[in-house]
Amino acid sequence: MRVVSERALKTQAEGHQVVMIVSAMAGETNRLLALAHSISPTPDMREMDSLASTGEQVSAALVAMTIQTLGGQARSLLGHQIKVQTDAAFTKARIHNIDATRILQTVKDGKVAVIAGFQGVDAEGNITTLGRGGSDTTAVAIAAAIQADVCEIYTDVDGVYTTDPNIVPTARKIDRISYEEMLELASLGAKVLQIRSVEVAMKYGVPVHVRSSFSDRTGTMVVGEEGLESVVVAGVAYDKGEAKVQLVGADDKPGVVAKIFGMLAEKNVQVDMIIQSPSRGGDSRTDVTFTVAKTDLPRVKDLIEDSAKGVGARVEYDADIAKVSIVGLGMRSHAGIAAKTFGLLAAEGINIQAISTSEIKISCIIAAKYTELAVRTLHEGFGLDRGTGAES
Amino acid sequence: MRVVSERALKTQAEGHQVVMIVSAMAGETNRLLALAHSISPTPDMREMDSLASTGEQVSAALVAMTIQTLGGQARSLLGHQIKVQTDAAFTKARIHNIDATRILQTVKDGKVAVIAGFQGVDAEGNITTLGRGGSDTTAVAIAAAIQADVCEIYTDVDGVYTTDPNIVPTARKIDRISYEEMLELASLGAKVLQIRSVEVAMKYGVPVHVRSSFSDRTGTMVVGEEGLESVVVAGVAYDKGEAKVQLVGADDKPGVVAKIFGMLAEKNVQVDMIIQSPSRGGDSRTDVTFTVAKTDLPRVKDLIEDSAKGVGARVEYDADIAKVSIVGLGMRSHAGIAAKTFGLLAAEGINIQAISTSEIKISCIIAAKYTELAVRTLHEGFGLDRGTGAES
Repeated sequence: MRVVSERALKTQAEGHQVVMIVSAMAGETNRLLALAHSISPTPDMREMDSLASTGEQVSAALVAMTIQTLGGQARSLLGHQIKVQTDAAFTKARIHNIDATRILQTVKDGKVAVIAGFQGVDAEGNITTLGRGGSDTTAVAIAAAIQADVCEIYTDVDGVYTTDPNIVPTARKIDRISYEEMLELASLGAKVLQIRSVEVAMKYGVPVHVRSSFSDRTGTMVVGEEGLESVVVAGVAYDKGEAKVQLVGADDKPGVVAKIFGMLAEKNVQVDMIIQSPSRGGDSRTDVTFTVAKTDLPRVKDLIEDSAKGVGARVEYDADIAKVSIVGLGMRSHAGIAAKTFGLLAAEGINIQAISTSEIKISCIIAAKYTELAVRTLHEGFGLDRGTGAES
Repeated sequence: MRVVSERALKTQAEGHQVVMIVSAMAGETNRLLALAHSISPTPDMREMDSLASTGEQVSAALVAMTIQTLGGQARSLLGHQIKVQTDAAFTKARIHNIDATRILQTVKDGKVAVIAGFQGVDAEGNITTLGRGGSDTTAVAIAAAIQADVCEIYTDVDGVYTTDPNIVPTARKIDRISYEEMLELASLGAKVLQIRSVEVAMKYGVPVHVRSSFSDRTGTMVVGEEGLESVVVAGVAYDKGEAKVQLVGADDKPGVVAKIFGMLAEKNVQVDMIIQSPSRGGDSRTDVTFTVAKTDLPRVKDLIEDSAKGVGARVEYDADIAKVSIVGLGMRSHAGIAAKTFGLLAAEGINIQAISTSEIKISCIIAAKYTELAVRTLHEGFGLDRGTGAES
C-alpha cells in the first residue's frame, strides 16, 4: 500500500490527476469465500457479491489513509458512490455505465481518487462484482469514462512477454502490442491482463500500460493496431487448464451436435475448441472433439454420457493435454504460417491432436508432456528470441 | 449465526414478518480498527467509516446465506440500499431518516430482511457509522420506520437487572421498565442497551424487548411509562469509568466556570457531573468539582492547568472513584429518597464526595473501594432484592 501510494503521489507531483483502482489485499477474497463456503457449498450469488465486495472496500479505505499519512489528499470511492452501473449477473456482472462526475470532481479538488475495483451496482442498487480479476476491468472502464490519458495496470511482472520466460529464457518483453493480439494471448492463458479488461480497452480505445508494481521500468503498451508495426507472430502462449472430450461415432444428422453443445451451454460449461470430423465415406457417423476447462470435466462427464448414448456415440476423455498457440496480427497477410507451425512441431515428433485457428491465432492441442518443448520450438522457429517476429 | 437465523425463521413461521439487524462478528471491528491504526494513529474519519462498515456488511451477507441454507428466504440490505440517511459526523453519525419501502417490500415477499447495522450514508452518499453499539440504534430506528410491533435486542444477558448480579446475587430481572429509567441506567454504565437506542425508542415509542441470544425466556420490556407500575427505585447502577477533577479556590466571578467548560466542550471532552460549591462567607473564591471519563483525564490535565492558574485555582485529580446511582420514576412523587440514600451509605461509613440528582436519579461519587458495598447496601435498603422497589 505504501508503494502504490507513493507512486500515486509521485505521479500527481508530476502534474497528473490520479485515479487509482484497487483490488483486495492478498488472501482477503479467499478468506471471504471460505467464510461463505463454511455456510453453504453454493451460497446465494447476490449475497456472495455483497460479501466479496468488502475486500476492495477495505483496500480503498486503507490506501486513502496511507496517502493521507504520506501528506497527500485522497478519498476512497465505492461502486455505488460512483455509480458503476452493471447488469444483475451476480459474481460476473458487466459494466453498463460509469458516472464520471464524482471522480472528476475528486481529482479536480487535488485529491487522489481511490476506487474500489471489482464492484458495481445493478439497477436496484444491489452490489454486484465483475468476477475475479474484475479490478483490471474496472480500471479500464473508468479510464474510458474519464477519458484518461493512459490506464496503468500494475502486476507482478514487468510487461507482456513473447512467451513464458520460465520456459524460454530468451523470451523478450514486448514494447507495444495490439488489443487483438493481447486478447488472444489472454484467452490463451497468458494471465497478465484479464480478457474482459482488454475487450473494454479495445472498445473504447484506452491505451493500457502493463507494468510492474516493483519497478519504474516501462512495461508493455497495449494499443490500437494503427501505427503498430505488425509482426507475423507476436507471442507464443500455452494453456494446461483444458481437457479434451471426444464423441466417437455420433449420428451425423443435423441438430445432433447443436443439441449437445446447447445442453452444455445451458449448464454454463464453457466449450473452447470444437472440431467435427466429416463422416467417412458413406458412413453416417461423425466424431466430435471439444475442449473444456479441466475443472468442468467431472460436470461434463455427468452431463454428456446419456446424450452420447442417445446419438449412438462413445465418449473418450483426455485431461492430459495442453494447448499451444501462436498469435500475431501479421498472420492475416502472411500465408503458410499454419503449415510452418505444424512443420516445426512435427520436426520435434510432437503429434497434433486438434487444431483451431482464427485470423490472428493458431492453436494446437498436444500431449501435455510436450508443452515446454513445443513452446520453445515455436518461439525459436518464429524468431521471437531474435526480436524480429517475422518468418525466418 | 445459525442460532439467530433459526430464531428468525421460527418467528417467521409463527406468522410474523421479520427484519433482522446484525452487527459485526466478534473481533471483526477490532481487526479493522487495528488495520487502520497500523497506517495512522489518527486515520481519516470518513475512510474509517467506509472501512468499519464492512464488518456489518460481511455479517449481513453471511446471515442471509445461513437463513437460505436453513431453507428460508433472506436478503441482506446495506445502509445505502435502504437509505439510512445520517448527518456527516463520521464515526458518530446520527440517523435523520430511513426509507422503509425496500425493507417492507422484502418482508412482504416472504423474505427475512437482514440489515447491516451501525451504518448509514450522508447526503453525498458517503458511508457513515453510528459509533460503537450503533447496531442497537439502527434496530430501534428501523423498528420505528417500519412501525414494528416490537424491537427485540439480543444480548449476552437475559434482560435488565435491578443491579449487577455479579455484585449482588439477589439482583432480579426487571420485567418492565420505562424508557426514562432505562436511559438513566444506560447513562450510568449499565451496558445492556446503548443510550442512543433508548433515546430513539423513547422518541418514537418503540417497545424494546431486551433478551438473551441463548435462551427463549422473556427478557425485559422497555416501554413508555403509561401503564407501568411506577416503583420508587427500579435499579442501582455504578460506573468506575470516571475520574474526578477539582478546581480549588477559583475566582468566583461570572463567566469563569463557563470559560473552563466551554474549552473542554470545544476539545470534545464530555463532562458528566459538575458541582460548584458556593463561596464561603465573604470569600470571593469557589471550588468546582466535575467528573470526566478516566480515558480523557490525561487530555483534561493538559487543557486545564493553564486555565486554572488564570483563575487563581489549584487543580486536584482523583481517578480512584466510582459513581453509584439509584434510578426510579417513583422518585418524582416520593420525598426523602435522597436523604435515605445518604443515610444508607453513611451507616456503612461510606463518605459521599459529590452528589448529583435528576428527577428520577440520584448519583453519588464515592471512593472506588466502596463500590460493591454501596451497591449492595442501596439494593437491599430500597428493597430491590424483595421485588418491591418501594421504600421499606
